[in-house]
Amino acid sequence: MGIRHIALFRWNEGVSPEQVERVGAVLGTLPGVIAELKGYGFGPDLGIGSGNYDFAVVADVETEQDFLAYQRHPEHQAALAVIRPLLADRAAVQFGIEL
Amino acid sequence: MGIRHIALFRWNEGVSPEQVERVGAVLGTLPGVIAELKGYGFGPDLGIGSGNYDFAVVADVETEQDFLAYQRHPEHQAALAVIRPLLADRAAVQFGIEL
Repeated sequence: MGIRHIALFRWNEGVSPEQVERVGAVLGTLPGVIAELKGYGFGPDLGIGSGNYDFAVVADVETEQDFLAYQRHPEHQAALAVIRPLLADRAAVQFGIEL
Repeated sequence: MGIRHIALFRWNEGVSPEQVERVGAVLGTLPGVIAELKGYGFGPDLGIGSGNYDFAVVADVETEQDFLAYQRHPEHQAALAVIRPLLADRAAVQFGIEL
């Protein structure tokens, strides 16, 4: 069984499109440097639902060990340093998937 | 561009494993009856993160029209009727993916 990690972000009031673009830019580097990532996707909410969060990240890995390696990777930590100051709220789940 | 719909659920206190199994059973019927679903996955949180929500659903569709068809489908509405009474909180995002 693989693991799908999902994190949804709600931005603080006043977060700019440029700041969200910077989040996308730093996340976009991760699949190239974190070998444990077997699938990776992210993006801003499309605005077709109501009450939605603002941004999603989906990371697919093979094992719990690989998930922890992803979380602890210095480049992931660097991405979190960009994201955390913008966060009003965060929701996450890891669940089992076929890989 | 395709659309990935994510919904995370936090259950009310006292929701039983049997009730969560029932949620999985009704969601499991949807890919067979809703042709717009090009990818579908769901499951309970694995308990490897802290502060997580309890359950995730990920639905991949081709277009916004297909997303709305999924949402409005009677079998999806029937699944929501099972899920809604159990919900303490819900977080959702739809974002763009390659399909």
